Amino acid sequence: MKFEDGESEAGVFGPGVFETLWESLLPVGRDAGTGGYRRYSWTEAEVGCRAWFARNATELGLGTDYDGNGNLWAWWGRPGPGAIATGSHLDSVPDGGAFDGPLGVVSAFAAIAQLREQGFRPARPIAVAAFTEEEGARFGVACLGSRLLTGAVDPDTARELRDSDGVSLAEAMQAAGRDPALLGPDEDLLASLDAYVELHIEQGRALAGLDAAVGIAEGIWPHGRWRLEFTGRADHAGTTRLADRHDPMLPYATMVLAAREAATRHGALATVSKVTAEPGGANGVSSAVRAWLDARAPDEATLGLLVDEVGAAARAAAEQHGVGLGIRRESVTPLVSFDPGLRGRLSAVLGADTPVLPTGAGHDAGVLAARLPTAMLFVRNPTGVSHSPAEFADAADCQAGVAALAAVLASLASD
Amino acid sequence: MKFEDGESEAGVFGPGVFETLWESLLPVGRDAGTGGYRRYSWTEAEVGCRAWFARNATELGLGTDYDGNGNLWAWWGRPGPGAIATGSHLDSVPDGGAFDGPLGVVSAFAAIAQLREQGFRPARPIAVAAFTEEEGARFGVACLGSRLLTGAVDPDTARELRDSDGVSLAEAMQAAGRDPALLGPDEDLLASLDAYVELHIEQGRALAGLDAAVGIAEGIWPHGRWRLEFTGRADHAGTTRLADRHDPMLPYATMVLAAREAATRHGALATVSKVTAEPGGANGVSSAVRAWLDARAPDEATLGLLVDEVGAAARAAAEQHGVGLGIRRESVTPLVSFDPGLRGRLSAVLGADTPVLPTGAGHDAGVLAARLPTAMLFVRNPTGVSHSPAEFADAADCQAGVAALAAVLASLASD
Repeated sequence: MKFEDGESEAGVFGPGVFETLWESLLPVGRDAGTGGYRRYSWTEAEVGCRAWFARNATELGLGTDYDGNGNLWAWWGRPGPGAIATGSHLDSVPDGGAFDGPLGVVSAFAAIAQLREQGFRPARPIAVAAFTEEEGARFGVACLGSRLLTGAVDPDTARELRDSDGVSLAEAMQAAGRDPALLGPDEDLLASLDAYVELHIEQGRALAGLDAAVGIAEGIWPHGRWRLEFTGRADHAGTTRLADRHDPMLPYATMVLAAREAATRHGALATVSKVTAEPGGANGVSSAVRAWLDARAPDEATLGLLVDEVGAAARAAAEQHGVGLGIRRESVTPLVSFDPGLRGRLSAVLGADTPVLPTGAGHDAGVLAARLPTAMLFVRNPTGVSHSPAEFADAADCQAGVAALAAVLASLASD
Repeated sequence: MKFEDGESEAGVFGPGVFETLWESLLPVGRDAGTGGYRRYSWTEAEVGCRAWFARNATELGLGTDYDGNGNLWAWWGRPGPGAIATGSHLDSVPDGGAFDGPLGVVSAFAAIAQLREQGFRPARPIAVAAFTEEEGARFGVACLGSRLLTGAVDPDTARELRDSDGVSLAEAMQAAGRDPALLGPDEDLLASLDAYVELHIEQGRALAGLDAAVGIAEGIWPHGRWRLEFTGRADHAGTTRLADRHDPMLPYATMVLAAREAATRHGALATVSKVTAEPGGANGVSSAVRAWLDARAPDEATLGLLVDEVGAAARAAAEQHGVGLGIRRESVTPLVSFDPGLRGRLSAVLGADTPVLPTGAGHDAGVLAARLPTAMLFVRNPTGVSHSPAEFADAADCQAGVAALAAVLASLASD
């Protein structure tokens, strides 16, 4: 709030610039009860974040602009070819934390302020982006803003995406004063970008284990979601002999444990956290159990093997209990390897001992990787907690992230 | 439908009496879509069943009456001391089958018609009862009519029980023309009953396995419901290392398999069919998993041992995963042993080779057992399916049930 109190004229973008920006964004869209954020795209809370972006970009002397997909851009220098972009997103998951997304935007502004103070004169334009609906929390498609920009999502389909109240993306944009007719790929904008470097809080504890404040992303693991439907027979829980049952909950339980075992063995990740049992009464055998398997692995072959093994274990248990099983792949995102040249440049700038980490989470940098060299910096998350009000990074680590990003931008924009 | 077509005057209560009664009740409250029944107490469908009861009792020359708890009584002979009662219930679970409940009432009427035709003159009054809300499908308390009659449920509490639309039992009874002020124990009625014999479709396949049409109930297993709450930590499914997780779904799965294993080992029953995971997204580790264990065993010691073992397995798995676990007993119904003298009488009448079966399901006969000698006859269920539109018994087995009940009533009412 210091910034809004008028201290900006007294040089608020000095040493405390990160803290000032951070603290001014903290209250926007924070739920008083949970302490978490509900910054869903184009809602009042998220539009408040956009206003914060425009106000601070202007304060920094950056020109701001919307692209046709509602992504925000702030430019140091005239927008045009050869630009180096950084940034992240401002929207949140339900009751998300303060860091996932905003840390990348605040750090970008702070890095630019730092470079300015150091007298750095960029040889290329530098852009700060805030992508729309990265979390997919309102309209169900993660990285929607960057996917629209690159053409990975059809604009007609996107306009008709609806939130849980039935409001379409088109209606939500119009209500916020944006024209949904402009949605779609922007080849000129993409062609003007030579690189995109996104800073993000780590969503695990790898850096904590390595005792490092900042790391470089190696790539995004291939990942997907599978739907498993176990079909048994409803029966009375008090009278049906065990031998006569076709209880779908039993092969489901076997599958849950098999998924964890296989993931451990393959150095991968597997999670089952969405499950429904029908008809759902406590005193009858279930007629059906539906579950979703989230699986992620270092490479696509391992991911395939993992899912095959879980499916085989589930199928064997289902057969043992006379239960039917259908497995359907709902979505698979292939491996994203961040640009080796750009990654090498980051390592050269930050030091060869900077840890290089894989991640299992999707990011706009992963979507943009299909069209331009992209890279990511991670800032240490001491607890590893993510998508929760308890998400946290130390102030010193955030400062280390700003310094790293400033060094990377200076290097990339110096020739 | 023959009965309603006016064939009664032509002696419908002859050889085809069971079929005639059965077919006239079949359409009442049957859902055209599922083929199942929704005969919830005091609804139009169930009041239709009550009208069917009164009409056919009158046709049989029986006097009909309501007790203060809405249970229906039809009397062969003047109501009074030394009576032998039979019957069951007419209400259903959601989309229940045609047999659970109605088979006992139809068989009672058919048995009386058979005894009449044979020229039997009872030495004691014989009563046919249809108890209210046996399934607890509308107001949530199973065997509500018999529990009110015996004083096992407080009438003030009962009047305030509400259905899913917020309608109280008192309001529902008033709407059907009954006075809820009369709810409560009826000592005179109970004192007039010397025995209650309930015929019911078997809700398992024990008789099918023994190749017998009719069996005698030994008792109702002690049974109960336990609530298990596994408390973990919400985390990102794509970034949280397996070793860093506190995933409550894993000890839940271990508990499901442990319950089945322990039930098999103890010759008992255990079922887990109600489960909820929070927050319920597919791409995050669950913060909590809540589940209900339904357990039933031949005796209370075995039931206690079974639940202790399942709890211990769940607790060990929860500790292994850093997950909290709370276990709460929600309800336990102790063992009901049907009256040994009355059971012996049934065996003597039906033959010593008539199978004697335990059951894990509750019945009005189990509630009444606290106040008078009670017994049950089971009719073979070839598939064992229960609480489902597919519930079924062969016509020949139903006739065998009627014959057995008639023989038992004749024996009990002959001196």
